Amino acid sequence: MRVPELIQRKRDGEELEREELSFLIDGYLRGEIPDYQISAFLMAVFFKGLSEAETDSLTAILIASGEKLDLSDIPGAKVDKHSTGGVGDKTSLIAAPLAAAAGVVVPMISGRALGHTGGTLDKLESIPGFNVNLTVDQFKAQLAQHKLAFIGQTDQITPADGKLYALRDVTATVESIPLIASSIMSKKVAVGLDSLVLDVKVGSGAFMKQQVHARRLAQLMVGIGRRLDKKVQALITDMNQPLGFAVGNALEVMEVSQTLQNSGPIDLTRLSLELAARMIFLAKLTPTLDAARELAQMKLLDGSGYRKLKEVIAAQGGNAQVLDRFDLLPNATGMREIITTRGGYVSAIDAEGIGKSVVMIGGGRNTAADTIDHAVGIILEVKVGQKVDAGSVLCRLYYTSETNLEEAAEVVEDSFRISSSAPEQRDIILEVVG
Amino acid sequence: MRVPELIQRKRDGEELEREELSFLIDGYLRGEIPDYQISAFLMAVFFKGLSEAETDSLTAILIASGEKLDLSDIPGAKVDKHSTGGVGDKTSLIAAPLAAAAGVVVPMISGRALGHTGGTLDKLESIPGFNVNLTVDQFKAQLAQHKLAFIGQTDQITPADGKLYALRDVTATVESIPLIASSIMSKKVAVGLDSLVLDVKVGSGAFMKQQVHARRLAQLMVGIGRRLDKKVQALITDMNQPLGFAVGNALEVMEVSQTLQNSGPIDLTRLSLELAARMIFLAKLTPTLDAARELAQMKLLDGSGYRKLKEVIAAQGGNAQVLDRFDLLPNATGMREIITTRGGYVSAIDAEGIGKSVVMIGGGRNTAADTIDHAVGIILEVKVGQKVDAGSVLCRLYYTSETNLEEAAEVVEDSFRISSSAPEQRDIILEVVG
Repeated sequence: MRVPELIQRKRDGEELEREELSFLIDGYLRGEIPDYQISAFLMAVFFKGLSEAETDSLTAILIASGEKLDLSDIPGAKVDKHSTGGVGDKTSLIAAPLAAAAGVVVPMISGRALGHTGGTLDKLESIPGFNVNLTVDQFKAQLAQHKLAFIGQTDQITPADGKLYALRDVTATVESIPLIASSIMSKKVAVGLDSLVLDVKVGSGAFMKQQVHARRLAQLMVGIGRRLDKKVQALITDMNQPLGFAVGNALEVMEVSQTLQNSGPIDLTRLSLELAARMIFLAKLTPTLDAARELAQMKLLDGSGYRKLKEVIAAQGGNAQVLDRFDLLPNATGMREIITTRGGYVSAIDAEGIGKSVVMIGGGRNTAADTIDHAVGIILEVKVGQKVDAGSVLCRLYYTSETNLEEAAEVVEDSFRISSSAPEQRDIILEVVG
Repeated sequence: MRVPELIQRKRDGEELEREELSFLIDGYLRGEIPDYQISAFLMAVFFKGLSEAETDSLTAILIASGEKLDLSDIPGAKVDKHSTGGVGDKTSLIAAPLAAAAGVVVPMISGRALGHTGGTLDKLESIPGFNVNLTVDQFKAQLAQHKLAFIGQTDQITPADGKLYALRDVTATVESIPLIASSIMSKKVAVGLDSLVLDVKVGSGAFMKQQVHARRLAQLMVGIGRRLDKKVQALITDMNQPLGFAVGNALEVMEVSQTLQNSGPIDLTRLSLELAARMIFLAKLTPTLDAARELAQMKLLDGSGYRKLKEVIAAQGGNAQVLDRFDLLPNATGMREIITTRGGYVSAIDAEGIGKSVVMIGGGRNTAADTIDHAVGIILEVKVGQKVDAGSVLCRLYYTSETNLEEAAEVVEDSFRISSSAPEQRDIILEVVG
């Protein structure tokens, strides 16, 4: 097989066989095929897509590139929840404890912040002492004992995906629906899940700007799962404003604590409960989805989700007191209020702008090598649909250094749109697939 | 400027500024931007194209990446002829001596065989002693004395084009009309030409399979030339069968000799005369194109083109006797006749198949590092439109080793199509642009 010919065939819209895709991807992983050929191939895939068969093949090749985690000796259904990435999205830290408290085994493999979107691992690491680098044995022992454990992606699981993703990130080939679908699904299948609840974000703050694309991505992942005998359900949810009020690592942990004590933002509470309910239902712990919703609600109201998160923080070496004493979390040293000069209705809060401004003051990463300031971030004072007077505070920017502060404040200010008429209200959950 | 953002903007169909293109290309040439980002960019260009302004910018950037040849101290108009590459295309070795004999200064910068297409430098090197590696001073001295000199592309001229072309070759991004146009035009302008005659091939044996694409390429190059104050004319010519009868380096030199003695194939003679006439006309040596055609014809009939080629061969260290004594050229040791099993009309001779079979027996290159067997090749016994009986010879395959011989013979046989009715005859010159 000649690499330029394979690239050319994909470029010309032909379908490649599994052996041909495996020749490319495995050869790349072994260092036999250079990155400049693979990046040209990925750009051809960006334009020409992959068929369902090719996407299944690629998923299988990525899974086979590394080790598989065997969780079969842990009793109970293993269900994870995965989000395609948003701003202020801390649902993992709420839905997972709720589902675990209800009896679901939740092996949570999470990612890090990149670009304007946050990452669960970084949020957890704002808790003093919290260790996300468990060994596989520690991870499995904690799952058996507490039903919930958080770790990062290891090099042993789907290494080809890691190498491909790093290349896509620097060659403008991230936003390809079949590449996103196979990347996510390969990682989830390789860690031995039985079922998966997906949260596919759509809107200004998400990779997918249009609902039709989010739907295609959701359908593709549900289909890959079905053909691998994994139950997958996807919620398509709104990311046209940040989720909840808090954006920034320690600030989000504080909001998680409030929400698990049933005093969090409405949108965040609603979405976290629905995700937990679907995890419970896919784990077959209740006969109906409605019963699962009641169970999730109960685990919120009786505080068992809150206690579960404390238990897991302690198990992973973290100081669980932070959920009650926010002064134990990293705290910013400066605060800047962003004021509106005109009154009216908040008609949009550009989540990408909010996310980028947090990165600008050190709360996220532009490249994988950047370090993060866990203390900084933004607390919204208003949400879309709210009426504001001229001179009122739209949000507060928390910072520890004045570097980039002015630019960030400008980006934040530009992220708010104030209109004279009230915008149409839309539910946070737009659609269910699967 | 961030490279992934520039790639993304091109991917999304945006127009890049000259400084942005120069940031990419110059950064790549300096080794500051890695090849995997440039190959993704090139694939995005393949799909989204370049605007006229971007193509002009790219051409200027390629020219500025290296030295320019200054031919202004050589009296007379400097006119070159360039073909986009075909099979059996030895017109450079005929048109250039005819034009030089008529008084045109022809600084012929030629290429090497790659894939199924041949290269002028390789044909010349089948002549014992012929040296294509002249210094710039030798090249200019020979031009001043003989009006014609052949050299290869040097590393000093448009080095960015050389580096980009090598990358395109292995990433399936060669076939992009704006990339081809800027590559050709940058090289031609950098060597100080006043005018240029282009031979844009179209058909099964050419890069451009469709006349509409060949026309776009021709129009683009004529436009780039016009905006740089260079007169450019393009012939769009048929490559749906090899040009002439001979394919293979030494075999083509023999056919060149015959054609310059006015006993060559009709199609080859007609096209070479027209190219020479346009070179003469662009050099303003005659008041009209028809007068230029008459002058070219005269230089053929009186043998001065033939003598000019001998003179130039001798000037570049080659044995000029080869044009009379073909036994002094490398000769093949074996011959295989390809016979037709059915009678009828030859309706097609797939030039790509013929070219590939010659590569298979050693007469061309799959990669730039391959060495060439100058002796081997094919002599057609028939051309499209000819009537053949079952059992008659279609062509003869000349070889020196039996490696790949059977496979090559099969490819040759499959390249001929025999039909029961006579095909429509078409002129070798399909269209003139500019």
